[in-house]
Amino acid sequence: MATFSMGQQTYAVPMALFRKNRAKVCAALRENAAIERSTYVLMQGGRDVSFNDTDVSFLFRQESYFQYLFGVKEPDCYGVLNIDTGVATLFVPRLPEFYATWMGRIISLDEFKAMYEVDEARYVDELDVFFEKAGPKLILTLSGLNTDSGLSSKPAHFEGIEKYVVNCDLLHPIIAECRVIKSPEEIEILRYVAKVSSDAHIKVMQFMRPGRCEYEGESLFLHHAYAVGGCRHTSYTCICGTGVNSAVLHYGHAGAPNDRIVKDGDMCLFDMGANYCGYAADITCSFPANGKFTADQKFIYNAVLAARNAVLKEARDGVSWVDMHRLSCRVMLQQLKDGGMLKGDVEEMLSAGLPGIFQPHGLGHLIGLDVHDVGGYLEGQPPRPTEDWLKNLRFARILKAGMYVTVEPGCYFINILMDRALADNSLNEFINKPVFERFRNFGGVRIEDDVLITQNGCENFAIVPRTVQEIEKCMDQKRNWKN
Amino acid sequence: MATFSMGQQTYAVPMALFRKNRAKVCAALRENAAIERSTYVLMQGGRDVSFNDTDVSFLFRQESYFQYLFGVKEPDCYGVLNIDTGVATLFVPRLPEFYATWMGRIISLDEFKAMYEVDEARYVDELDVFFEKAGPKLILTLSGLNTDSGLSSKPAHFEGIEKYVVNCDLLHPIIAECRVIKSPEEIEILRYVAKVSSDAHIKVMQFMRPGRCEYEGESLFLHHAYAVGGCRHTSYTCICGTGVNSAVLHYGHAGAPNDRIVKDGDMCLFDMGANYCGYAADITCSFPANGKFTADQKFIYNAVLAARNAVLKEARDGVSWVDMHRLSCRVMLQQLKDGGMLKGDVEEMLSAGLPGIFQPHGLGHLIGLDVHDVGGYLEGQPPRPTEDWLKNLRFARILKAGMYVTVEPGCYFINILMDRALADNSLNEFINKPVFERFRNFGGVRIEDDVLITQNGCENFAIVPRTVQEIEKCMDQKRNWKN
Repeated sequence: MATFSMGQQTYAVPMALFRKNRAKVCAALRENAAIERSTYVLMQGGRDVSFNDTDVSFLFRQESYFQYLFGVKEPDCYGVLNIDTGVATLFVPRLPEFYATWMGRIISLDEFKAMYEVDEARYVDELDVFFEKAGPKLILTLSGLNTDSGLSSKPAHFEGIEKYVVNCDLLHPIIAECRVIKSPEEIEILRYVAKVSSDAHIKVMQFMRPGRCEYEGESLFLHHAYAVGGCRHTSYTCICGTGVNSAVLHYGHAGAPNDRIVKDGDMCLFDMGANYCGYAADITCSFPANGKFTADQKFIYNAVLAARNAVLKEARDGVSWVDMHRLSCRVMLQQLKDGGMLKGDVEEMLSAGLPGIFQPHGLGHLIGLDVHDVGGYLEGQPPRPTEDWLKNLRFARILKAGMYVTVEPGCYFINILMDRALADNSLNEFINKPVFERFRNFGGVRIEDDVLITQNGCENFAIVPRTVQEIEKCMDQKRNWKN
Repeated sequence: MATFSMGQQTYAVPMALFRKNRAKVCAALRENAAIERSTYVLMQGGRDVSFNDTDVSFLFRQESYFQYLFGVKEPDCYGVLNIDTGVATLFVPRLPEFYATWMGRIISLDEFKAMYEVDEARYVDELDVFFEKAGPKLILTLSGLNTDSGLSSKPAHFEGIEKYVVNCDLLHPIIAECRVIKSPEEIEILRYVAKVSSDAHIKVMQFMRPGRCEYEGESLFLHHAYAVGGCRHTSYTCICGTGVNSAVLHYGHAGAPNDRIVKDGDMCLFDMGANYCGYAADITCSFPANGKFTADQKFIYNAVLAARNAVLKEARDGVSWVDMHRLSCRVMLQQLKDGGMLKGDVEEMLSAGLPGIFQPHGLGHLIGLDVHDVGGYLEGQPPRPTEDWLKNLRFARILKAGMYVTVEPGCYFINILMDRALADNSLNEFINKPVFERFRNFGGVRIEDDVLITQNGCENFAIVPRTVQEIEKCMDQKRNWKN
């Protein structure tokens, strides 16, 4: 049985996973009335991306759709599926002899076939000959909108493809939908990468303290994920916001590179997830820098935790994700009201759009091979809500068993949104201004779990301290932590 | 005085460095007879690169030419130089209000002006208005061949540029040549990043041992470079080859991801370099996995060390780099002859091209903002040698004070090259086959330093144990090393 693994204690991913993904996609395609016999799927794998005009490349990670079907770690490959038979052919670059000197032993076609459990391995330059012989009625390539980025996947191309009848639209919604429901094998990788990420988060929580720099936490996370978990990639740039930075949703980018020194009294919001064999984790822990929550920190943290707990209790097959978002907002605002920051009727707050002031992002997103995974707004699914406080939801579907989602309620104090709320009469009537203003520069809290939807509930793969007590206890153990 | 720094004990790079780079380029352009008054330089900064069609980007690092002139960490900027006056204008994207929620506080033009010590900061959408008012006779943009990658830099473009007279060829050789000679300020960053990388190498040497995985060493290097040195990027993918992998020159890529378990008796060849504020280090340490050289390991290591020592002794202003390559090969082959692996006349071995069997790469390369830095084969400089064993040299210039180069002789036992040598009568006459064959699967040794050329010699910025004794002593200290 062929596997992908980084050795030692890391997880061995069976190549059968990708074989089953291929079978699932072929079956779904065969069910589609528009697709006749003698139709083939042609996928083009990811390519090395140069750093500008230099001879250095960004570290290669396989394109997600190609990874889904083939699980191949090498760049510049193609893959073909015979939809009728399910037969899979992997096409790999024919490498020049000097490759062995610079890049290592040249792997034979037989080895590729065995490594990836495909039915056949050939060279990329044989694609045309392959199709000439196969005589396809139709070749399906992949093109379609990614609703998170607004970008489109690029359809496969090879010299000679113009001789065949090609359709680049049919495949996308079908394969995207296949990716939405995770197989048992996929669930096991996701569980693994969430565990590695959880352990790394715990290490970071125990390491951080006033005087350290945000990026020290990032670096420690990356080190644990890689050296212990075998995860060479993360799924996204680490967000390590402390103090006011914890209210910046996508902090940590090149312009704001996790470079603030942590101060006593800060909240830390660390949103970090490893990637293993292409599969993502996406976990956020929020905790006080000095290990002990203040009353205000506890207030906000527990409001978010209550929202998160409510969702984890209710999320299951058949439930609307938009309803889950509403539920989390309702619970959070009720808590803010109970704590004296808000006043008035919670349902009216929702109608007025007040939740968007505190949490400008959606409750969560599908996750899998991409951190914001595909399948959000496919045709035939509920469209993106239009209300201001709901429109940032990355999907609006009815949950199904096998979906894997983040649950990530948050409460942030963002200057421009605070000012907007105070200036807006439909919002400021709910706000107890002195309490609200006390939290300016507080930053924010996000609690983000990675959750598998099941028939009767859900399972949380993020195994990190979550209650105030658990966090304080965990961070207290840092006194025994050598670094 | 504005600086770039990652805080704490990391190096504070003065923005004056980039101001001086701009002044140097303007002065060089003014000296060029083809460039009249009222000519402007227009540079386009690097852009965020998406991971395929997703909303995740590769971690941004500034394009090297733009970094050279402006030292700006944000993507999507432009820069303009008035060549007559040296006045520099930075153009930054005009960000929408919601940016503050997702990405952080929007930095004002005045702040940008102060942060980067430019004369003026404006928005990118004002480029056309700017040039309309300036009325340039000519705008210089950047296009030219990178002789390491074969790729070309992309000339700057903005909506409206077609109204102006633009030349994209004049700038490239001039700015590339400016980059070749390092300023005192650049030398200090290069010294810093080499020191951080050296310290990380030492940590890795002390950590590695049989039973560990190659990537654990990579991960530790990255962690030290980032957490201690503030280096979020490396200059290239870490090469952590052990055993036979140490003979694969560019091992460590996605298809061969540093995933072998180290065995007792292995040589380790770790080629890793951090990057700080765009500036690169590129250091290789070769050492026995178990901390103690065998006689065979010592034989090969000392042959490479002798070659390296010879070059460090001779390299200085006025010396030909090709001669340095020849010198290193001559010394190494002499050592291999003295140890009984080769026989015959060393000069004849060189004439026959034997060095290319043991070291298929050049002695080293220019290094700076790019690990394989620009300026290798500019017009007017010595062309690429045509001999097989010299043609991989990345430059062939006469050394000048202020050049910064790697010195990286190596000796590898690569199956296809060994077979080729044994089959070639012009080569095999020099080879003592039983000794040579003993080293099949030995792997390889490379010793790579980062060296500043001076008037009377050179200065090595890589501060790592180099002799057999130093390495064994350093690794012996690992017993006191907690990990």
